[in-house]
Amino acid sequence: MPERKPVPDPTLLRICRYLRILERQEANTISSAAIADAAGVNAAQVRKDLSFFGEFGQPGVGYNVQHLLASLKRMMGLDREREVVVIGAGALGSALINYPGFESRGFRIVGVFDNNPAKIGHRLRGYEVMAFDRLAEEIADRNVSLAIIAVPRLAAQDVADALIAAGVRGLLNFAPVTLRVPDHVVVRTVDLTLQLETLAYHLGD
Amino acid sequence: MPERKPVPDPTLLRICRYLRILERQEANTISSAAIADAAGVNAAQVRKDLSFFGEFGQPGVGYNVQHLLASLKRMMGLDREREVVVIGAGALGSALINYPGFESRGFRIVGVFDNNPAKIGHRLRGYEVMAFDRLAEEIADRNVSLAIIAVPRLAAQDVADALIAAGVRGLLNFAPVTLRVPDHVVVRTVDLTLQLETLAYHLGD
Repeated sequence: MPERKPVPDPTLLRICRYLRILERQEANTISSAAIADAAGVNAAQVRKDLSFFGEFGQPGVGYNVQHLLASLKRMMGLDREREVVVIGAGALGSALINYPGFESRGFRIVGVFDNNPAKIGHRLRGYEVMAFDRLAEEIADRNVSLAIIAVPRLAAQDVADALIAAGVRGLLNFAPVTLRVPDHVVVRTVDLTLQLETLAYHLGD
Repeated sequence: MPERKPVPDPTLLRICRYLRILERQEANTISSAAIADAAGVNAAQVRKDLSFFGEFGQPGVGYNVQHLLASLKRMMGLDREREVVVIGAGALGSALINYPGFESRGFRIVGVFDNNPAKIGHRLRGYEVMAFDRLAEEIADRNVSLAIIAVPRLAAQDVADALIAAGVRGLLNFAPVTLRVPDHVVVRTVDLTLQLETLAYHLGD
């Protein structure tokens, strides 16, 4: 694996947005200004973000859409399918299982787990909900490296510990808690209320 | 309304995390180091973030928890209830309606809307799903300023336009699209797949 210089998270998030824009392009080339306009940023930002991943495009011509798309996907690790497990078969877990963006972008949910006996063995949107104690076995069998945590706050750290012990290295956490993880594991915590709270601030009343 | 200097979004998001930590405190005072430790940042960051909102705390004593909590909530606009509407009664809208964090943090869902005749008039987690054409009336009647958009990508801009025309000033958008809004409106777009994509990058394989 080649050494990569770390790319800051805001850049990664913008690169993913550029990928979506590139995928919708029908022309062969696109300018940084056109990407910027569709992404709601400025062209200098687009050029700076892309420079983390190499030299792309020609002055006056723009970027070759297919080349840029393939290069960015490869460098982002998005040129292959990823297996994902979902922990928590409540309302949020249930919505996430069918979240339209996951499958279409190569994230394939291969297991849904819960510790509620009333849910275990039942089907949820096409998936059989499995007992949490089968987690380690399933993760090893299927070589899963990503997990989505959709359990209550007080259960989240234990769930994270079990996932990490089973070999998962990336956690998308929906519980409103700061998870403690070892250095080789990456966590992104999505707290949907936080976003509403920043909106409340901007209302200014 | 007093003039406020704009606070950057990353600071706002951290302040909201500090609020959660303060709410769980049982002691009367807390140090910046203790807040930092619980939030997974360093103490200098905590002090810098708080300085946007005023001068708090005493060297060697720390912060008065209740005073800091009340001050930050007031300055964040989080010291009152906010009425919110949800547009889209699909799987995601359905999960968001019952997302435990909203109600407990003062965001009260007062209406759920969809344009699917099979859903209109039916109850969804205790809410009657209303026809989209009743949106303007309901928003005006209930003085709603925040909306959650949980509709497909291609419908999101039209929904946003209708919400803004009806007087909504803050949009939490779950559709993977950059919404165009006038200057007086604030949008936060939550694309759950983006977060998985940045995790894929960090896996480095």
